[in-house]
Amino acid sequence: MSYKNEQLSEEKVFKDPVHRYVHVRDRVIWDLIGTPEFQRLRRIKQLGTTNLTFHGAEHSRFNHSLGVYEVVRRIISVFKDYPNWDNDERLLCLCAALLHDLGHGPFSHSFEKVFKLDHEQFTQKIILGDTQIHKILEKVQPGFAQDVADVIGKTYANKLVISLISSQIDADRMDYLQRDAYFTGVSYGHFDMERILRVMRPMEEQAVIKSTGMHAVEDYIMSRYQMYWQVYFHPVSRSAEVILTKILHRAKFLYEHDYAFKLKPAHFISFFNGNVTLQDYLRLDESVVHYYFQLWQDEEDAILSDLCERFMDRRLFKYIEFSPNRMMREWMELYSLFKKVGIDPDYYLVEDSSSDLPYDFYRPGEEGERVPIYLQMPNDELKELSRQSDIVEAISGKKRTDHKLYFPLDMLKEKAQNSDVKRILAILNGQGVVNHHAE
Amino acid sequence: MSYKNEQLSEEKVFKDPVHRYVHVRDRVIWDLIGTPEFQRLRRIKQLGTTNLTFHGAEHSRFNHSLGVYEVVRRIISVFKDYPNWDNDERLLCLCAALLHDLGHGPFSHSFEKVFKLDHEQFTQKIILGDTQIHKILEKVQPGFAQDVADVIGKTYANKLVISLISSQIDADRMDYLQRDAYFTGVSYGHFDMERILRVMRPMEEQAVIKSTGMHAVEDYIMSRYQMYWQVYFHPVSRSAEVILTKILHRAKFLYEHDYAFKLKPAHFISFFNGNVTLQDYLRLDESVVHYYFQLWQDEEDAILSDLCERFMDRRLFKYIEFSPNRMMREWMELYSLFKKVGIDPDYYLVEDSSSDLPYDFYRPGEEGERVPIYLQMPNDELKELSRQSDIVEAISGKKRTDHKLYFPLDMLKEKAQNSDVKRILAILNGQGVVNHHAE
Amino acid sequence: MSYKNEQLSEEKVFKDPVHRYVHVRDRVIWDLIGTPEFQRLRRIKQLGTTNLTFHGAEHSRFNHSLGVYEVVRRIISVFKDYPNWDNDERLLCLCAALLHDLGHGPFSHSFEKVFKLDHEQFTQKIILGDTQIHKILEKVQPGFAQDVADVIGKTYANKLVISLISSQIDADRMDYLQRDAYFTGVSYGHFDMERILRVMRPMEEQAVIKSTGMHAVEDYIMSRYQMYWQVYFHPVSRSAEVILTKILHRAKFLYEHDYAFKLKPAHFISFFNGNVTLQDYLRLDESVVHYYFQLWQDEEDAILSDLCERFMDRRLFKYIEFSPNRMMREWMELYSLFKKVGIDPDYYLVEDSSSDLPYDFYRPGEEGERVPIYLQMPNDELKELSRQSDIVEAISGKKRTDHKLYFPLDMLKEKAQNSDVKRILAILNGQGVVNHHAE
Amino acid sequence: MSYKNEQLSEEKVFKDPVHRYVHVRDRVIWDLIGTPEFQRLRRIKQLGTTNLTFHGAEHSRFNHSLGVYEVVRRIISVFKDYPNWDNDERLLCLCAALLHDLGHGPFSHSFEKVFKLDHEQFTQKIILGDTQIHKILEKVQPGFAQDVADVIGKTYANKLVISLISSQIDADRMDYLQRDAYFTGVSYGHFDMERILRVMRPMEEQAVIKSTGMHAVEDYIMSRYQMYWQVYFHPVSRSAEVILTKILHRAKFLYEHDYAFKLKPAHFISFFNGNVTLQDYLRLDESVVHYYFQLWQDEEDAILSDLCERFMDRRLFKYIEFSPNRMMREWMELYSLFKKVGIDPDYYLVEDSSSDLPYDFYRPGEEGERVPIYLQMPNDELKELSRQSDIVEAISGKKRTDHKLYFPLDMLKEKAQNSDVKRILAILNGQGVVNHHAE
Repeated sequence: MSYKNEQLSEEKVFKDPVHRYVHVRDRVIWDLIGTPEFQRLRRIKQLGTTNLTFHGAEHSRFNHSLGVYEVVRRIISVFKDYPNWDNDERLLCLCAALLHDLGHGPFSHSFEKVFKLDHEQFTQKIILGDTQIHKILEKVQPGFAQDVADVIGKTYANKLVISLISSQIDADRMDYLQRDAYFTGVSYGHFDMERILRVMRPMEEQAVIKSTGMHAVEDYIMSRYQMYWQVYFHPVSRSAEVILTKILHRAKFLYEHDYAFKLKPAHFISFFNGNVTLQDYLRLDESVVHYYFQLWQDEEDAILSDLCERFMDRRLFKYIEFSPNRMMREWMELYSLFKKVGIDPDYYLVEDSSSDLPYDFYRPGEEGERVPIYLQMPNDELKELSRQSDIVEAISGKKRTDHKLYFPLDMLKEKAQNSDVKRILAILNGQGVVNHHAE
Repeated sequence: MSYKNEQLSEEKVFKDPVHRYVHVRDRVIWDLIGTPEFQRLRRIKQLGTTNLTFHGAEHSRFNHSLGVYEVVRRIISVFKDYPNWDNDERLLCLCAALLHDLGHGPFSHSFEKVFKLDHEQFTQKIILGDTQIHKILEKVQPGFAQDVADVIGKTYANKLVISLISSQIDADRMDYLQRDAYFTGVSYGHFDMERILRVMRPMEEQAVIKSTGMHAVEDYIMSRYQMYWQVYFHPVSRSAEVILTKILHRAKFLYEHDYAFKLKPAHFISFFNGNVTLQDYLRLDESVVHYYFQLWQDEEDAILSDLCERFMDRRLFKYIEFSPNRMMREWMELYSLFKKVGIDPDYYLVEDSSSDLPYDFYRPGEEGERVPIYLQMPNDELKELSRQSDIVEAISGKKRTDHKLYFPLDMLKEKAQNSDVKRILAILNGQGVVNHHAE
Repeated sequence: MSYKNEQLSEEKVFKDPVHRYVHVRDRVIWDLIGTPEFQRLRRIKQLGTTNLTFHGAEHSRFNHSLGVYEVVRRIISVFKDYPNWDNDERLLCLCAALLHDLGHGPFSHSFEKVFKLDHEQFTQKIILGDTQIHKILEKVQPGFAQDVADVIGKTYANKLVISLISSQIDADRMDYLQRDAYFTGVSYGHFDMERILRVMRPMEEQAVIKSTGMHAVEDYIMSRYQMYWQVYFHPVSRSAEVILTKILHRAKFLYEHDYAFKLKPAHFISFFNGNVTLQDYLRLDESVVHYYFQLWQDEEDAILSDLCERFMDRRLFKYIEFSPNRMMREWMELYSLFKKVGIDPDYYLVEDSSSDLPYDFYRPGEEGERVPIYLQMPNDELKELSRQSDIVEAISGKKRTDHKLYFPLDMLKEKAQNSDVKRILAILNGQGVVNHHAE
Repeated sequence: MSYKNEQLSEEKVFKDPVHRYVHVRDRVIWDLIGTPEFQRLRRIKQLGTTNLTFHGAEHSRFNHSLGVYEVVRRIISVFKDYPNWDNDERLLCLCAALLHDLGHGPFSHSFEKVFKLDHEQFTQKIILGDTQIHKILEKVQPGFAQDVADVIGKTYANKLVISLISSQIDADRMDYLQRDAYFTGVSYGHFDMERILRVMRPMEEQAVIKSTGMHAVEDYIMSRYQMYWQVYFHPVSRSAEVILTKILHRAKFLYEHDYAFKLKPAHFISFFNGNVTLQDYLRLDESVVHYYFQLWQDEEDAILSDLCERFMDRRLFKYIEFSPNRMMREWMELYSLFKKVGIDPDYYLVEDSSSDLPYDFYRPGEEGERVPIYLQMPNDELKELSRQSDIVEAISGKKRTDHKLYFPLDMLKEKAQNSDVKRILAILNGQGVVNHHAE
């Protein structure tokens, strides 16, 4: 039997709290899971700093990647009975599902922002570069690694295959909503995935949903909406991320200004210099980041040291609602007052905003066109979801944005007798200092 | 109001997947949670290497510590209506519950074994030493830190207080069984804690159980039994731990033999030298261990490098059942054959055993006397649990031990043509090479 | 101690799948539960005919009534610390919660429609009439029964008390959504009640919600929306209800036309005559209805016999979407064709519609004014929910209606050769015969 | 395609709280579910009087029968890949699973005891008699009904087929343990069925369990043990059953002594006379029983009337522990004292005992030989479970019996001044009157 079709002598399973079991029968999948590149995902949290708000959210990207694989496996076990489905694409789908997040680094969001990186590019590099992953994929057949990369990069010819892992209702989202809900313990994030899988149908361009399953899809979209605002954009996690970003900025700044680190930050040099190799990238997991942050707590530079201590000991910034338009004058005043009292506003007065588009229908020509969800009506006609669902229509295409201003309330309180600080606190209080805690 | 009695203006809660919410009203508890020493527990996994078998088991000791606190809080909310209960002990119980695992380091079991450390001593040191934890406790009242340390050290005068966190049915066990079951996703570990809390009664020496709750307690003991054999002693996790232990041994050995590490293992020096300070200890979290293991993959020393790679990439040892008595001859032959084929048996042929006593009644004079569980009968008489429960009697006092022999099957297979290796494989196969995977 | 304040020597609990335990400490509550009038609720299903679609939905109104009591008990345990809350109202609230559904009969909806009854009037009669319930309430204090009746009838002076069991976010709805979801097994109906209870605050006119809990309330409203359309208005359950209604109509018609029943329908006579006494009403539980339907299967009257057989054996009517305006002509033609082929359209061609208003804000002067949900903002201002929540605004005040036409497809198929039946089937098929099964 | 192999055009599913969905694809199964004989199971509770203790336990035998079918369906989907499995037996297994409880009547235990009936005989009669069930089965192929009857009656040649629904680890038990746990809400009854199904292997005489699944089976056996003592033998449910049995005895006694019932108990006559036809049997569901019990509350006979009222209004007997050997003298004294004070001991002083054998290995020649559970070891050897499992060995073959004495405490209290009653109460109190409530 060819490697492509090789089956394990006995099915292997992973006990999974979300899908009960993840089932592996293909030798290729088993081998991919065993690579260093994939095992590395164990040391990268799925939700970055969210565990500082929801302490259960310690789960790794390894966890999620297996989950997406399992969801696609189940989708295909339904699809395989339909004529539209080409079962030759099966292994490709499974590999793409398993590997779609391979290029994630620690705290991706902040690292990408500060160092101008793109985890999707690294996913491509790992799949196509000199890695064990690559070797296994090419063993399936020459060019197979490229196919997997194309599916993940959304350039593969068969759009149906792409839609299983990147669409508005794909295995990726279905897994992470449930998984993140499970590990945080929130009551959102639940929907009837088993039902959705039963009503998914393969079509030429994408998977569609039998109209009898519309309500299950509505429920899924509402789950996503709630998870975004209750978990992913939680202001306390964002506070930690703000600090993290500022640490990276500061370290880069110091490096560029020839600051003498006590221990040379070897793992970070290429990041600072903007010439990160695949090798450098793969070595940087969360452990390494934590290690440096611990070291940097003892650095001479007060800002770097303070921020690292805040991050490690979870002494976060507080925040207020902040609308940049409405508050330009306050912002400018705060900025100069911070300078005046000796708290560097470039690191300690940080605006942050999050926004989400919970569901969107296709609007040709716009950036980030998203393939909408189609319902298959009893007469086989396809209808775009928001035309059938009042609820989805209600939130469709509506971008919601949340602006916040972060600052170290503790630092200010230490200088509370200072009249400039008093003025700062008065301005901030005027906007209502919000509790810093995940209630 | 005194600091001891100070209440937060509004109750704080932590969303917890196991207990739904952890409730905090006392300022002291809130402040303790905010210390660096307590936050450090976020970087130490509750179950060490178990996540290499059950990928969901990424939860931290921070997680568990909050949980034990919450369980004790609930127990006290029942106890406070009983005359036997002295509510002045309330805050002491809560603090001891929260802090009982404070001295745990990364992969405690292996570190303690190799470096002759004791996490309980470090818990005492953190509580009594120059730490933020200590300062907060002493602010409650002078000597309070010592009280907390005494409760955790089981020397406190009020035995009832001790029993809440260290007995055969305490908040510690009730939390970890449920929590570890939740995060691993196994179906064991469930019991009706709410029922048990309802039937717990404070007595002079310990908490007892109303006899009507006997079956809930049976269920709890069976959960514990199953969790030990299905999760805690899972042979795959033990394989990872075996490797970890051997890494530490090797690094220590190299250090003692003046091996030139590429980067001086600064964090480990005092561990190697046996003069670990509190400061050293607190700096060593899992991130730091992972950081070094990554570095050591590139060391010249083949054993250190190989073992580190195995641990990081999860290329574990395989195992067979191994009864030392029955197999002494095979063991000796294997040992010399390993030497002969150039695989150092001191690092690559490892015996490991686990054993558990799921429940024990009091046997005076024996080591590790355990306070048994007492049932309070309708006539107020106390009866030891195993006298009333057939099931508990059946497993009572019965130590079960599991012996395994670990070795690198992949290394052997690489030399499969070698006749000595053939002999090795024949011996091992004679014992039945067990699958290495968590099914 | 007065009867009003009498506590049971030990708390009693009921194991409840939804709230884990229902706790009873008040002697009054315990005594009310023990009355024949309350025990009778065990023989009346919470969801009438829904179990013919969702077979798990066999739970009784007894079940739900205990649940509402428990939710109110928990709300009060939060409220009791607030100055706005008058704890003298506690027992009244608990009694009203427990008894609010007391007047429900079997399959209330159909019985009320056919016999012009009102279960709320019977609740009042049971509380105020010559019953054991009444005796217990009056033992609390003279006039207490009237107070309970007033709370349930929404005429009690303290509006806050009323709002706990009748408002847009009350204990009644919070219990039934979760309970009906649990027993049907659907994935809708879940929301974080514990969170909602934590953010409820007593105000003068009603309970309000702290604004930080808005998302939990959104989730609750979406649950309600989904449960209505997925469970409560499920077309298959409605098919059973259509048949049930027609059975009652037919039996009444026969009685009024002096039809000779094989066994005199003693339990139904006063229903047919429109002079139902409290005594008659209380005797009519679901068992009695089933008993008669079984007997009536053997009646001479073909329509009564057929409909009863359908109901008992679950041979339901099929249905099509049916918009009365758009289809008046088809309707008229179908009606006369049914007559022509000898299938009485008054019993076998039935239009049925369901509609729901998932959430409404206050519109003075309109019928059925509903008190809206208010959020308490950080500055203590109250804001109506739909002003703050995009999602709620989207569905606010929007009535959705679903029209269906029910008919016995099996009967028609038996005469499929008849040209008039062919025409009937053509018309119905033109509208798309929908599958009759709960998928 | 033959009827035997006919598939529905689209899979039908039933939403099931325990197995999520029950899947039906075979036309035969769909038709069987639609018969009046099967639909009748909706009106018979799975757990008889247990709902008077655990109010959630309202689920029907219809519910459970679908569940057993679904479990067998899943077992076969695993077995079909094994050479030992003859897939020609598939439909037979599914039918036997679905229909195995078809002959259950209302409150089977009591009815069988009083009227000397056997539900298994009625299952046979329904399958083989003039019923719709029979017609459908014979349509599959002549003799198929007999095959189904033989599987259920355990006389079918292929023992493996029988073992799926009647062995110590069969689909019947696996469904009811989980289902009864779900509906009662107790925390017992959970085990990892998915795991057990994965490790079941078809062998010639029965299904065996791969030894790696031993712990899941231990967990299942413990669940069973706990469910028996916590739910099935709960003394309060038994109190209701005692009363029910006495009602039936009394009604029979009155009938035999020509008592003039106000309404002739038509449905019961053949039961009283011992000549129950299949027709009579099928008409007697729980509704009919409740109907009569309601009527009989108004009978002249004080005993019948009182017992019926007790049953309907849940005014149950209290109980004490009662060991017949130890207490013969007390029993005799109580019996004559009851007579003396005018409370008929034949109806009001009732001994009841329950006993269970949680697991048994094969002991040839003993009554009720039970096929033990076998583990398939890595070397394919079969070992009987209790030889491998300490826990199972501990409870293996150990019959546990619980004796109780039931009596109407309320009646006695009404005559509390009577010196004989005082003596009665003294005797009973000497044994400890146990609370009558499910805590």
